[in-house]
Amino acid sequence: MTKQKFASDSLTTMTEMVLPNDTNTLNNLMGGRLLHMMDICAAITAQKHSNRIVVTASVDNVSFSEPIPLGSVVTLRAWVTRAFNSSMEVYIEVHAENIPAQKKIMSNKAFYTFVAVDQTGAPIDVPAVVPQSDEEKELYESALRRRQLRLVLAGRLKPQDATELRALFELNDV
Amino acid sequence: MTKQKFASDSLTTMTEMVLPNDTNTLNNLMGGRLLHMMDICAAITAQKHSNRIVVTASVDNVSFSEPIPLGSVVTLRAWVTRAFNSSMEVYIEVHAENIPAQKKIMSNKAFYTFVAVDQTGAPIDVPAVVPQSDEEKELYESALRRRQLRLVLAGRLKPQDATELRALFELNDV
Amino acid sequence: MTKQKFASDSLTTMTEMVLPNDTNTLNNLMGGRLLHMMDICAAITAQKHSNRIVVTASVDNVSFSEPIPLGSVVTLRAWVTRAFNSSMEVYIEVHAENIPAQKKIMSNKAFYTFVAVDQTGAPIDVPAVVPQSDEEKELYESALRRRQLRLVLAGRLKPQDATELRALFELNDV
Amino acid sequence: MTKQKFASDSLTTMTEMVLPNDTNTLNNLMGGRLLHMMDICAAITAQKHSNRIVVTASVDNVSFSEPIPLGSVVTLRAWVTRAFNSSMEVYIEVHAENIPAQKKIMSNKAFYTFVAVDQTGAPIDVPAVVPQSDEEKELYESALRRRQLRLVLAGRLKPQDATELRALFELNDV
Amino acid sequence: MTKQKFASDSLTTMTEMVLPNDTNTLNNLMGGRLLHMMDICAAITAQKHSNRIVVTASVDNVSFSEPIPLGSVVTLRAWVTRAFNSSMEVYIEVHAENIPAQKKIMSNKAFYTFVAVDQTGAPIDVPAVVPQSDEEKELYESALRRRQLRLVLAGRLKPQDATELRALFELNDV
Amino acid sequence: MTKQKFASDSLTTMTEMVLPNDTNTLNNLMGGRLLHMMDICAAITAQKHSNRIVVTASVDNVSFSEPIPLGSVVTLRAWVTRAFNSSMEVYIEVHAENIPAQKKIMSNKAFYTFVAVDQTGAPIDVPAVVPQSDEEKELYESALRRRQLRLVLAGRLKPQDATELRALFELNDV
Repeated sequence: MTKQKFASDSLTTMTEMVLPNDTNTLNNLMGGRLLHMMDICAAITAQKHSNRIVVTASVDNVSFSEPIPLGSVVTLRAWVTRAFNSSMEVYIEVHAENIPAQKKIMSNKAFYTFVAVDQTGAPIDVPAVVPQSDEEKELYESALRRRQLRLVLAGRLKPQDATELRALFELNDV
Repeated sequence: MTKQKFASDSLTTMTEMVLPNDTNTLNNLMGGRLLHMMDICAAITAQKHSNRIVVTASVDNVSFSEPIPLGSVVTLRAWVTRAFNSSMEVYIEVHAENIPAQKKIMSNKAFYTFVAVDQTGAPIDVPAVVPQSDEEKELYESALRRRQLRLVLAGRLKPQDATELRALFELNDV
Repeated sequence: MTKQKFASDSLTTMTEMVLPNDTNTLNNLMGGRLLHMMDICAAITAQKHSNRIVVTASVDNVSFSEPIPLGSVVTLRAWVTRAFNSSMEVYIEVHAENIPAQKKIMSNKAFYTFVAVDQTGAPIDVPAVVPQSDEEKELYESALRRRQLRLVLAGRLKPQDATELRALFELNDV
Repeated sequence: MTKQKFASDSLTTMTEMVLPNDTNTLNNLMGGRLLHMMDICAAITAQKHSNRIVVTASVDNVSFSEPIPLGSVVTLRAWVTRAFNSSMEVYIEVHAENIPAQKKIMSNKAFYTFVAVDQTGAPIDVPAVVPQSDEEKELYESALRRRQLRLVLAGRLKPQDATELRALFELNDV
Repeated sequence: MTKQKFASDSLTTMTEMVLPNDTNTLNNLMGGRLLHMMDICAAITAQKHSNRIVVTASVDNVSFSEPIPLGSVVTLRAWVTRAFNSSMEVYIEVHAENIPAQKKIMSNKAFYTFVAVDQTGAPIDVPAVVPQSDEEKELYESALRRRQLRLVLAGRLKPQDATELRALFELNDV
Repeated sequence: MTKQKFASDSLTTMTEMVLPNDTNTLNNLMGGRLLHMMDICAAITAQKHSNRIVVTASVDNVSFSEPIPLGSVVTLRAWVTRAFNSSMEVYIEVHAENIPAQKKIMSNKAFYTFVAVDQTGAPIDVPAVVPQSDEEKELYESALRRRQLRLVLAGRLKPQDATELRALFELNDV
């Protein structure tokens, strides 16, 4: 992994209109459809960073706050926060807006992890991420903690070995 | 919340075939499409428990292991593990299979949380869950811990107050 | 066709939510969309029995009784009733429910026939079906009669040679 | 039902291209998707005859012969053969063609029955059909027999009372 | 290009129902969806003329007049007006109708240009068009003018060399 | 129309991945699907400028140059160039890229016109556009010419009265 790329090189903006088939009985965007939009946006972002085919490895905990009505415009903005060998963490900000009503509906955020693969589907290393802005630097730093949480939740790391994560729970000083 | 229902009353089985538009460039199911299927399955499950319109409140961390090729059959099996006032945690098991190749492809699991709402979209209480089998009981017990993790990750609970969660990290005895 | 499988080995349950694009001007599920759902459910069922790629050979007469409104949950339950060389008859029960209204909407049934094919699309023999429950046995027995009706309607069997079918019309004793 | 309309007044032609999501693992059109196309074509046909909202009442036995590959052009041609109070029988001819290969793939036919309804969904009478061409006349005559078969199969007519149907089985002279 | 075909040999009729996902917030057909329908109809038409795979080369200016509500029936009628080496101009007439309301909603027209290609995607000559009816002859004649406008707008022809086009602007006599 | 807004206030970026159902037999994006994407992107752009529901009024001549393969990423960038009472011209730049192949595939541009309407569908005035950059200024100036061409092509302006358009054909100095 000799090559390096700026976090902002992978910046991707995606805009979608909430169409009837995206909605539930209350005429609001279904959570699963938003998860699907975020996955496509994040996949494009990870492709931009790696110049590779990418596959979804995981999605972190996502909370849905306010309902997003039919006809709203959903804007997704994403970039790769940090790379670990063949895997990339993608940060996605979501904004929803009812434009004719001039009403910002909600803002949300999520983290998806993608793995770069070759044509046979085997993992392949990707460039390192160089963060520049304060926000990029903060997300680069905290990526380690989120990675530990993913590994613990997937049963691939013992909680007591998750040193960064313990810090999250302010337990490192207990 | 005077009424009670068995966990198994909400049991829902959903079977889907992976169609071309569900796949990525490698002809495998896209992660976001699976998240979408799980959301619909979990929503039906939460409806069965509450007899209410339900909206997605959150999805827990989900990991994707093996690729699921075009033409595979995806089976989702879900039930409500526990209810908290108007919210319900739904457990979803996913199995994918390439039937002509007689090959079980993967098994996965996820937790979605739904809130029951009335016609105006306001939260409304749902029946308590009565677990019966060992698996139902175990998931009922651990639901509290997962709920704390969700609240911590959403910034609505301080990590040091997440007593159940500290147990997960085997830190309660530190 | 030396191998045998139980009817219940192919049992498949599919659950779908009626989304906006599935509905007509009265906001009810379109008949053609239900026929499509039943075809996918039955195809998966026939795959489970044969462990082969399967193609739809025919659908028997299907009646639609009550309208199924937007937001309803449609549950399909299917199994292979009987096999004839490379073809399999699949029985599908459909239930529709408006869960928030606690209202069972309708119940319906249909028979689809599938042919198992190899990668070149040529028909290939499938295991025989062993019925166990009373319902499975009854559908196994009556499958012969339905097969004759299909052949008569397709112009591949002369009505007077359809001995089982004549029984249906209670004409064998005329 | 004082009004009368020619069979040809309802003639509808629909042309569809087989797109990737319409196909199965062998890259051929799925039977259920064709049933769906036929339902929409027949619904438009029944609307033209009745100038009413229409709902699918039944589809007769449909056989699928040859596979229709991805990229094929499917042409549907339909008209109302006969009306019975609020119900209309629609005849649909299907042709599939791989145009670049200059290959006619198959021809098929089906009968769908629709009921005209008012805005509350209640059945409402439709004009009588006046057949003109020989083909229209023949289908007008045989509609009675098919209607009896539908009623028998739906359990709403005793086989021995299906006088026209007995003729189909050449049993009227027994 | 030794072969010739009649304009009417490519005549294609396509009928579509406006479904919920085709509509905007006012429950009317979105312009982009109509452009999509016209493209598929015109592609089939160009295939019929050329017996080749065809790709869209351009769409001329299209105006949308009246809104087409959900549930309307849209009828497209198209034929190839003229061929130029490997390219074909397709004329498309669109009619929309709210059948239950017995209301013709709008009529529209458009011109799409397609190029015939071989399996490698390289352009390949197509038969000449022989117009027969007055309408076919008029569109055949004016095709040259529209082709010049397309070339000018694409920057591939200097306006002063567009002799036919200058006639359109009644400037040939200046 | 007292209010004014900057052209850049309406800037919208939309990113789409070419999925299987978007493609033709050669596995390339269908022209009609791209026209559909551009319509949605332009509609969002016009909404941002007007804070109103908008409907497509027309699309100018669009040329398609190179094929865009399955899996490509299509990026659309659009802004309102100029407003005329209730109508807005939207400029859309399209870039397609095969990211894993590090290959820019094509760049394209189009102009769509939208009309702002109130809840009854009646046209309503929108703010004037204030261009700032050189590109915005150039497109603002040339908008008049394109508007005349649209009116001429729609038969609503006589060619000889299209003073700006004559300039396009360099005929004003003849």
